[in-house]
Amino acid sequence: MHKVIFDTDPGIDDAMALLFLHQHPDIDLIGITTVFGNASIETTTRNALYLKKTWNIAAPVAKGLGETLDPSRPHVDWPTAIHGDDGLGNIGVSDKVDVDLDPRPAHRFIIETVRAHPGEVTIVAVGRMTNLALALKEDPDIAVLVKDVVIMGGAFDVPGNITPAAEANIHGDPDAADVTMTAPWPVTVVGLDVTTKTVMTRKLMADIAMTGGERATLLAKISQFYIEFYEQHVEDGMVVHDSCACVYVVAPHLFETRSGAIRVICGGIADGQTIQKPDSRSFPPSPWDDLPSQSVCTSVDADAVLALIAKTIGRPA
Amino acid sequence: MHKVIFDTDPGIDDAMALLFLHQHPDIDLIGITTVFGNASIETTTRNALYLKKTWNIAAPVAKGLGETLDPSRPHVDWPTAIHGDDGLGNIGVSDKVDVDLDPRPAHRFIIETVRAHPGEVTIVAVGRMTNLALALKEDPDIAVLVKDVVIMGGAFDVPGNITPAAEANIHGDPDAADVTMTAPWPVTVVGLDVTTKTVMTRKLMADIAMTGGERATLLAKISQFYIEFYEQHVEDGMVVHDSCACVYVVAPHLFETRSGAIRVICGGIADGQTIQKPDSRSFPPSPWDDLPSQSVCTSVDADAVLALIAKTIGRPA
Repeated sequence: MHKVIFDTDPGIDDAMALLFLHQHPDIDLIGITTVFGNASIETTTRNALYLKKTWNIAAPVAKGLGETLDPSRPHVDWPTAIHGDDGLGNIGVSDKVDVDLDPRPAHRFIIETVRAHPGEVTIVAVGRMTNLALALKEDPDIAVLVKDVVIMGGAFDVPGNITPAAEANIHGDPDAADVTMTAPWPVTVVGLDVTTKTVMTRKLMADIAMTGGERATLLAKISQFYIEFYEQHVEDGMVVHDSCACVYVVAPHLFETRSGAIRVICGGIADGQTIQKPDSRSFPPSPWDDLPSQSVCTSVDADAVLALIAKTIGRPA
Repeated sequence: MHKVIFDTDPGIDDAMALLFLHQHPDIDLIGITTVFGNASIETTTRNALYLKKTWNIAAPVAKGLGETLDPSRPHVDWPTAIHGDDGLGNIGVSDKVDVDLDPRPAHRFIIETVRAHPGEVTIVAVGRMTNLALALKEDPDIAVLVKDVVIMGGAFDVPGNITPAAEANIHGDPDAADVTMTAPWPVTVVGLDVTTKTVMTRKLMADIAMTGGERATLLAKISQFYIEFYEQHVEDGMVVHDSCACVYVVAPHLFETRSGAIRVICGGIADGQTIQKPDSRSFPPSPWDDLPSQSVCTSVDADAVLALIAKTIGRPA
């Protein structure tokens, strides 16, 4: 069993990833920490509580900070065109959800949960890396106590999506991402190099809704808005960015990876770009030296990933 | 016939490229402009004069500036491990070569030559882009009078070579490269994405020396030092970076290209990185907007490129 803390900003593809983690038999979801990004921290936290209640998820929800690690960074508008005004495809989530939050801030929840289960916790982070960086800053010693960190974010051998250089999760808090990538814990980055290859068709989503009962039906309803947005970019269906990171936890053999230190560009026109120094290459001295070697996913068996997602979220609850 | 100005920092693979331009029947080499990089400006200029005299090249040699566009950039040591102390593989070029320089500085030579042949000149630049940027700064109107600019430099979908982010020619003067890439002239960039695929074996070099007479024999002698350096990186032979750009002029069909605006990162840990915004993709407003669409070589028929080089420099003079 993989003990997982899910750091998330729901967010439509976040909702699918959450359902995957909740329903996969090899995953023990022990906490949900919220971060801003797809919407404000109030909205993403409300959505996490809503999904927890609706899907009957036992894991507690801890609310993260609502601003970037460097508070002087300018605010960027929420991507309401992708996730809707409510962050869940405008299904009309009520403002008040009758579920209690964990009393701790997200980064403190991460620290205490990791310390309670040394060597056992996998953190799956699919939004900005603000909470992870705050946890590391407050308690750097947790790095060696974490089993694995799996991140959805970044773009290595392909262009970004929010700028030609940068992917949105990293671009949303580059300083936090650089702290996260360079810490002495094992990070696997599941970025646009593989997630954009992993497109769930409308038909597959409909099939999942048919077999998966009420949970999957709600997910399919939430996802329509996102699918319509992505129609500008992909032929038919939704890019399941966040679920790819969750699949990596239970089925890493479906991905090829490359090892090497990762730095994140902070500032300038490449702000938020992720750059790896492959271990297979040698360079003159550079700011990538003496940093932990992390894994970057470079290719994916997309059909197998989609099949595993369908099997997991499409099974009757 | 392609009227070509060759902007170069000889340099060993520069010497091969120069011989290619000199001997290819469809190229009229009308000028050689020197830039620093593989060695100091004094050394690269001396080497250009030496090769001009030894190979009986009619084109004049004009000396470029010996420092980066932004003179406050720190000096980096010359890559003597790759090109030798004399920039030509330590064959022992005498300090004094009995050939006259063109009296004009390189950037002025470029301006006047372009203006003398409006719409006809192809600039092949295989070193730092300092001379091209200076020419554009002094006379921006030449941009629309140049037929084509073909650059060896940059790394787009692959790591750099001088840092994980940057290729050496661009890293050597990023500000000049950004000016060059964003000017309204048609640029094709032949970077590490294709040049590192184009490896001339020792055997092919020996065959060329056998058939190509004294010129090719000298080239083979110069190249041994470079081949020995590259043995750390490639199996057997030399990466013919600069010749790839020359081949592009006469055989563009051997390359696949991608169009889109190009920016060069100036400063920070990604200093000198080249980033293209593919025309096929849409992004929110970014510093790549409203710039000319340039071409980046993304793949190459390396065997055909090598065969064309061998045929051209291996034929009896």
